[in-house]
Amino acid sequence: MIIVGILVGAVVVRWLMHRLIKRIVRTATERHAARTAAEGGRTAALLAASGLAHERYVQRTETMGAVLRSIVTIAVTTIAVLTIMATLNIPLGPLLASAGIGGVAVGFGAQSLVKDFISGVFMIVEDQYGVGDTIDTGEAVGVVEDVSLRVTRLRDRSGVVWYVRNGEIVRIGNHSQGWSTAQVDVPIALTEDIGRVSDILRVALADLPEHDPRVTDPPTVTTESMSQGVITLRVSARCLPTQHLDVQRDIRALVKGALDREGVQITAPSFGSGQSKAP
Amino acid sequence: MIIVGILVGAVVVRWLMHRLIKRIVRTATERHAARTAAEGGRTAALLAASGLAHERYVQRTETMGAVLRSIVTIAVTTIAVLTIMATLNIPLGPLLASAGIGGVAVGFGAQSLVKDFISGVFMIVEDQYGVGDTIDTGEAVGVVEDVSLRVTRLRDRSGVVWYVRNGEIVRIGNHSQGWSTAQVDVPIALTEDIGRVSDILRVALADLPEHDPRVTDPPTVTTESMSQGVITLRVSARCLPTQHLDVQRDIRALVKGALDREGVQITAPSFGSGQSKAP
Amino acid sequence: MIIVGILVGAVVVRWLMHRLIKRIVRTATERHAARTAAEGGRTAALLAASGLAHERYVQRTETMGAVLRSIVTIAVTTIAVLTIMATLNIPLGPLLASAGIGGVAVGFGAQSLVKDFISGVFMIVEDQYGVGDTIDTGEAVGVVEDVSLRVTRLRDRSGVVWYVRNGEIVRIGNHSQGWSTAQVDVPIALTEDIGRVSDILRVALADLPEHDPRVTDPPTVTTESMSQGVITLRVSARCLPTQHLDVQRDIRALVKGALDREGVQITAPSFGSGQSKAP
Amino acid sequence: MIIVGILVGAVVVRWLMHRLIKRIVRTATERHAARTAAEGGRTAALLAASGLAHERYVQRTETMGAVLRSIVTIAVTTIAVLTIMATLNIPLGPLLASAGIGGVAVGFGAQSLVKDFISGVFMIVEDQYGVGDTIDTGEAVGVVEDVSLRVTRLRDRSGVVWYVRNGEIVRIGNHSQGWSTAQVDVPIALTEDIGRVSDILRVALADLPEHDPRVTDPPTVTTESMSQGVITLRVSARCLPTQHLDVQRDIRALVKGALDREGVQITAPSFGSGQSKAP
Amino acid sequence: MIIVGILVGAVVVRWLMHRLIKRIVRTATERHAARTAAEGGRTAALLAASGLAHERYVQRTETMGAVLRSIVTIAVTTIAVLTIMATLNIPLGPLLASAGIGGVAVGFGAQSLVKDFISGVFMIVEDQYGVGDTIDTGEAVGVVEDVSLRVTRLRDRSGVVWYVRNGEIVRIGNHSQGWSTAQVDVPIALTEDIGRVSDILRVALADLPEHDPRVTDPPTVTTESMSQGVITLRVSARCLPTQHLDVQRDIRALVKGALDREGVQITAPSFGSGQSKAP
Amino acid sequence: MIIVGILVGAVVVRWLMHRLIKRIVRTATERHAARTAAEGGRTAALLAASGLAHERYVQRTETMGAVLRSIVTIAVTTIAVLTIMATLNIPLGPLLASAGIGGVAVGFGAQSLVKDFISGVFMIVEDQYGVGDTIDTGEAVGVVEDVSLRVTRLRDRSGVVWYVRNGEIVRIGNHSQGWSTAQVDVPIALTEDIGRVSDILRVALADLPEHDPRVTDPPTVTTESMSQGVITLRVSARCLPTQHLDVQRDIRALVKGALDREGVQITAPSFGSGQSKAP
Amino acid sequence: MIIVGILVGAVVVRWLMHRLIKRIVRTATERHAARTAAEGGRTAALLAASGLAHERYVQRTETMGAVLRSIVTIAVTTIAVLTIMATLNIPLGPLLASAGIGGVAVGFGAQSLVKDFISGVFMIVEDQYGVGDTIDTGEAVGVVEDVSLRVTRLRDRSGVVWYVRNGEIVRIGNHSQGWSTAQVDVPIALTEDIGRVSDILRVALADLPEHDPRVTDPPTVTTESMSQGVITLRVSARCLPTQHLDVQRDIRALVKGALDREGVQITAPSFGSGQSKAP
Repeated sequence: MIIVGILVGAVVVRWLMHRLIKRIVRTATERHAARTAAEGGRTAALLAASGLAHERYVQRTETMGAVLRSIVTIAVTTIAVLTIMATLNIPLGPLLASAGIGGVAVGFGAQSLVKDFISGVFMIVEDQYGVGDTIDTGEAVGVVEDVSLRVTRLRDRSGVVWYVRNGEIVRIGNHSQGWSTAQVDVPIALTEDIGRVSDILRVALADLPEHDPRVTDPPTVTTESMSQGVITLRVSARCLPTQHLDVQRDIRALVKGALDREGVQITAPSFGSGQSKAP
Repeated sequence: MIIVGILVGAVVVRWLMHRLIKRIVRTATERHAARTAAEGGRTAALLAASGLAHERYVQRTETMGAVLRSIVTIAVTTIAVLTIMATLNIPLGPLLASAGIGGVAVGFGAQSLVKDFISGVFMIVEDQYGVGDTIDTGEAVGVVEDVSLRVTRLRDRSGVVWYVRNGEIVRIGNHSQGWSTAQVDVPIALTEDIGRVSDILRVALADLPEHDPRVTDPPTVTTESMSQGVITLRVSARCLPTQHLDVQRDIRALVKGALDREGVQITAPSFGSGQSKAP
Repeated sequence: MIIVGILVGAVVVRWLMHRLIKRIVRTATERHAARTAAEGGRTAALLAASGLAHERYVQRTETMGAVLRSIVTIAVTTIAVLTIMATLNIPLGPLLASAGIGGVAVGFGAQSLVKDFISGVFMIVEDQYGVGDTIDTGEAVGVVEDVSLRVTRLRDRSGVVWYVRNGEIVRIGNHSQGWSTAQVDVPIALTEDIGRVSDILRVALADLPEHDPRVTDPPTVTTESMSQGVITLRVSARCLPTQHLDVQRDIRALVKGALDREGVQITAPSFGSGQSKAP
Repeated sequence: MIIVGILVGAVVVRWLMHRLIKRIVRTATERHAARTAAEGGRTAALLAASGLAHERYVQRTETMGAVLRSIVTIAVTTIAVLTIMATLNIPLGPLLASAGIGGVAVGFGAQSLVKDFISGVFMIVEDQYGVGDTIDTGEAVGVVEDVSLRVTRLRDRSGVVWYVRNGEIVRIGNHSQGWSTAQVDVPIALTEDIGRVSDILRVALADLPEHDPRVTDPPTVTTESMSQGVITLRVSARCLPTQHLDVQRDIRALVKGALDREGVQITAPSFGSGQSKAP
Repeated sequence: MIIVGILVGAVVVRWLMHRLIKRIVRTATERHAARTAAEGGRTAALLAASGLAHERYVQRTETMGAVLRSIVTIAVTTIAVLTIMATLNIPLGPLLASAGIGGVAVGFGAQSLVKDFISGVFMIVEDQYGVGDTIDTGEAVGVVEDVSLRVTRLRDRSGVVWYVRNGEIVRIGNHSQGWSTAQVDVPIALTEDIGRVSDILRVALADLPEHDPRVTDPPTVTTESMSQGVITLRVSARCLPTQHLDVQRDIRALVKGALDREGVQITAPSFGSGQSKAP
Repeated sequence: MIIVGILVGAVVVRWLMHRLIKRIVRTATERHAARTAAEGGRTAALLAASGLAHERYVQRTETMGAVLRSIVTIAVTTIAVLTIMATLNIPLGPLLASAGIGGVAVGFGAQSLVKDFISGVFMIVEDQYGVGDTIDTGEAVGVVEDVSLRVTRLRDRSGVVWYVRNGEIVRIGNHSQGWSTAQVDVPIALTEDIGRVSDILRVALADLPEHDPRVTDPPTVTTESMSQGVITLRVSARCLPTQHLDVQRDIRALVKGALDREGVQITAPSFGSGQSKAP
Repeated sequence: MIIVGILVGAVVVRWLMHRLIKRIVRTATERHAARTAAEGGRTAALLAASGLAHERYVQRTETMGAVLRSIVTIAVTTIAVLTIMATLNIPLGPLLASAGIGGVAVGFGAQSLVKDFISGVFMIVEDQYGVGDTIDTGEAVGVVEDVSLRVTRLRDRSGVVWYVRNGEIVRIGNHSQGWSTAQVDVPIALTEDIGRVSDILRVALADLPEHDPRVTDPPTVTTESMSQGVITLRVSARCLPTQHLDVQRDIRALVKGALDREGVQITAPSFGSGQSKAP
């Protein structure tokens, strides 16, 4: 009687788990498609890559589903067999003790794996970043190409692909949310007048936001340090996310031109430039 | 008889837990609204962001509540079924042993998750910081945009958004409580008289607290070091929290002006300025 | 019979525990008041802050007491219900196994919390520092503003408030017990006579302890190094705790004056000062 | 009766496990052959090495299979004997307790081994890299020569062979997917005109992608910094994976030639070149 | 019957444990007094501090004894009550399971505490250092002021008091056992003759051990390096423990005098001294 | 009856284990002899050392075997006695619980020992290195003198013997497999022609592989950097394993000779050589 | 009956353990005496220290033996009492559970202690070093003064005594086995001829092994680097263990003399010497 009940229960549980896994796989695939479509709109260049990524995602998800179903079948079968053995009064102590010793060893070794998955689930649930964002994981900095439960795949500026395990990431810096800041340090000679040079820079850069859609606010000029033979002024401009490196380069060219026009000396605590001033 | 009791008990426990979860969600939402309103008064600029953050908070809290209720339902159902099986003398040893091995592995992997939550609870209970504070978490420095149980979201000065796990923070530095200190180091030539230069600086900066509402005390001037061809004087001024960087920039301009007026030489252990003195 | 006994026992235990918690809260509050009063005498400036801190302490202690009483009520009720279920022969195996798995996960995650509390208890019992002391925790250096079981709150010299978890502190340096040492390194030219310069410095600083109540012993002058074109003499003076930074600044001014009067050259291995010697 | 059942069960389980191991070994060998063939096509030079590697792989896999079969036989025999002893009411408590204590010690020690294997499985399943890729494991950088479950074997540019345990790799940087970027920094004198030099460089390098199949896009020229007596321009060119070091060397020679032809001064903040400019 | 036996056993055990604690406290106090007396003889200055330290030690030991007795009473009572409950067939499973979960959490958190105590016991048993020794714990260097089971209290040269947890000390360096070595590096010009300068130094320092009771052996002179425009000779003298810093200062003055008398040039690879040689 | 069976079983198990240990010892000794003979052929100088090493190995293996046999005897006896006690209904709970607590402590402490052994087994099985190879273990670099299960013994270039625990090695770099690369950086003046100098170097080194059996390929010359007043050319030559340091020295002498003959200036960003060019 | 058997068994076990401890203590003492005598022959200076060390060792070993015997008595008594209680059907569950919780906490804390002992046993068994050897433990470098199971005591060159816990040592470098290498880098001017200078050095040092028993092989001269205005030649000489520092000093004096005699310029990339060459 009991044995029949155990068998029936096992079949029912297996059927329920398999159905659950199938539904999760389907939901994940659909959500990923929606998310990919939404993300794809950001930058057209990523569209093709996204399609490919989605294909791979679907394939991997289904493989994962098949693996999970096999695991469920094996687990349910094993437990059912063991339970039937127990009802027949076959002593299971030695078997369970052996399995326990092995299980502890595997459990210890698998803990970083579990940690990766848990971190991955929370990163995705909390929507910390998506495909196309530029992020700083501590281990690597780059554009997110793929987000899976165990690893995040980035590509950095020089083209290297990085696979970072989610559990190893203690903090994420997302460069693609809100704004970024372009900063250029301008070293001028101690003999120059701070006020005059600041005004020159402000005037030269005042209309930058109008010309350049990447710059959102007019740049500010502040005095950062005053030592080692030079005064360092800092030009700061708020711009669109991840655009600050390009904007910095343009600001540098503008600053050089303006200072040359006005005859302000860009200097540095090096010997060469200091001496050419003497005669 | 016993089975009926178990079923009744399970239903009662589930109902109690669901009600408890609902109440906690409601309380948390209300408290967050009150807290957001209180915080919002600090800086008007954060008001809009706060409203948005509250919306997201409510949404997430309710999602979390629904998830919790599902977990409770699954846990209570599972325990009830197992208990009924036990009363029917179906041996549960194999099942519990298997679950135990899996549970240990998951438990090990989840320990950093639990640590994050516990740290988050205590940070909030101890009121270490709130939305709008500038904090130093060790991993990142910036303005707090959101405080959740698992992660704290910061935005640093250059616009990068940082997600820091609460359990990874071993110490927090809160820059927004009390005051801050603006410090400017002034390198002067060894041949200058310390007393005279100190007086010049003191006079030049004496009325700073009157002109500048950010500065709370008159700046002090101290002798910091005396070597490498220069004497370094340090101007220190206590000012409002998080304002010291801006105040430092203004003090630097004031000091430069005053020293130029009085003919004091700002110098540094570099070759250039040392030689221009020789002829 | 047994059930009645269990119920009675549970009520008695809960009553005893509640009473114990109340007494501990009251004792802690009184001791804190006494300790705050004693500490407050050190520096008048901390008095107001201390009063405020005590208010907050009392409030937090009572909140903690209420939380503890709730925990005791829940724990005693749960154990009593489970024990009664066990006497009714309802199988508790599944329930306890589930709780065990969850408990292990939480226990692992909570271990740093327990470590913080244990460290905090011993720090307070061993009287390592009190409110108003300047301490170095490794994570941050500053004046202690509050000591709780889990965290220590410091304020550093620039006004930042630091929350340091007690369990993360492996060694504490307390700057406020005993004395401190002011040290000023004086670089003089290789061509000077060590004996003569030492005598000049000793004479110039001999009456410092009489003029300055912060200095407890007459300064000593020692030869620290002899290379790189300079001889470095070190002036050391024992002074009151945490006063050495201010005393150092005063000693620097005195030394500069004395050496200028006597025509001793303060030099350094930099180019500028070396060349001004040539002509 | 039960004893006979146990013996039959043990024989059946052992037979099933042995067959499973054989099939896994065969599948792994075939897949490795296919993968080696596919990889071998990338660079002809690796073909011979691959054949050798496959031989070794097959040999090792079969050794591993034999070892696994022995382990299965020992484990099944031990468990069967113990179970029979238990059915004969021989107390097994002491034996299992002793084994448990030993097992825990071994389990702790083996956890890094398990971690290596789990990491290796996921690396291979996620196809993070293959034989012939240039990867950065953090511990060593080089060309992958062999990927096994426990270690990855690399050979770096100077010929050293590195064995890196898979579990110690927290992030992988794969240099062989997509593209790489050649970057050359060109320091020019402050007195030069940024615009003119940029044009010279752009013209000189414009037809690089036509001449050189390794370069995929025309190089860009940007202003990177402006201090210390020099302006630094950066030439960046996207090229085929792992080719950037060679391309950089060629670009350097081209840039030197172009600047020499046009009379632009390559300079640096050093003394020598600064002075030769003065007369 | 059994219950009476349990009660009697509990009373007996409690009485034995209390007596044991009392004896340990008395022995520890007496030993500490003896040890303090013995140590006090080393430096008279520490005598007063030692007396105070002993007072505090006695007080703390007795407090600790009282705490231990309370713990024993609570533990024995609890175990006795539980055992009586067990003999009355009240099910203890739920209670013990709850206690076990809590106990594991506390046990994990307390492990660093236990580690501190075990390390402390061995440090004291192995007699690694005593009050008055100058030790290097890695975390801090200073004179030992107090050695307890959990922490070691040091005072460094600048007056800061350090509390170092014994379990965090992986190696101890004891500067007060045996001897110390005074080392002075003398940079001389490349043009000098090594043999002649060595002889001058040897002669000048030969009678140091006779004049100075802190120096135990005549100093030796060796050639340490020969590059960067200078030859570096090293004077080494073995002296009494912890006296090397003072001896070094005296040797420096002696060396400077001897070299000046003999016209040997102390030089360094700096610009200033190199140029003063040219004309 | 059962007791007799237990005794018989214990004797049989002990006999089997002893025989197994003896066979393992014999196999290990024979394999070591074979391996030593094979390795010895590599470099004749190691032959004598190998013989000695083998003697020590045999001795140690036999000691280890004796120790293992004692452990087996003690373990089997203890388990047999305990099992007989259990069949006589003597309660073993207290004994096993005490042993368990002790066993856990020892197990934790022994985990790094187990880790060393497991790592050692895999290193030897995977044939990562043998006696005579030059390896980089991270902790030390040198020639392998002995490989045991727990530690690897190296001797570095300066004669120091290093004992490195196998479990602490996270990656191994084997310098003795395949090839090595000799690299010499040649700094030439900015005014030199890159093409001409490269040709001079290529011609001078072209016949190196013919003269020198250690060099396998003709050296290549590439442009590595172009800044700070110098152009750096790099000469790279593939040579036999571990020979690159010696080859580098020879290439340096050849390069110096060739450049001197052709009148090419080897320069560096230092002052001295830059100025000697000016007049 | 059973109770009598338990008592008899306990007495027998205690007697056996005590006898075993006594024998181990006696063996250890004798072996230490033998080892000390053998080691003492190496350097006569260590003889006296060794005698003292042996006295201390004997004393400590006997104390340890007494402590161990007490532990055995307590353990055996406790287990016997508990077992008798169990045979009387007194429930031991609560007692064992309490002990288990405490035991786990102590076990965790004691794991580093166990690790120290296990490491110590293997270090001694593998004969990695003995009293009088100069070793590098990573934490400290010095001459071994005492080797115990838990710590190794070293004395470094400046007289500081280091206590290093054996479990913290991940690799040992033994400087006293085999040989050591004296290395002297000789910087010569770029204008010198490498071949000529090498010959001068070789000739000057050729007969060093004959004059100096510490040097075993004739020194070799190699070209190490060629940049920054200098050529660096390296003189290497194999000598007796731990003698290389002294030999280096002698070689330096010999090299200086030889180069001065031959008029070779020892130079360096410093300004001073570069300029003295110009006129």
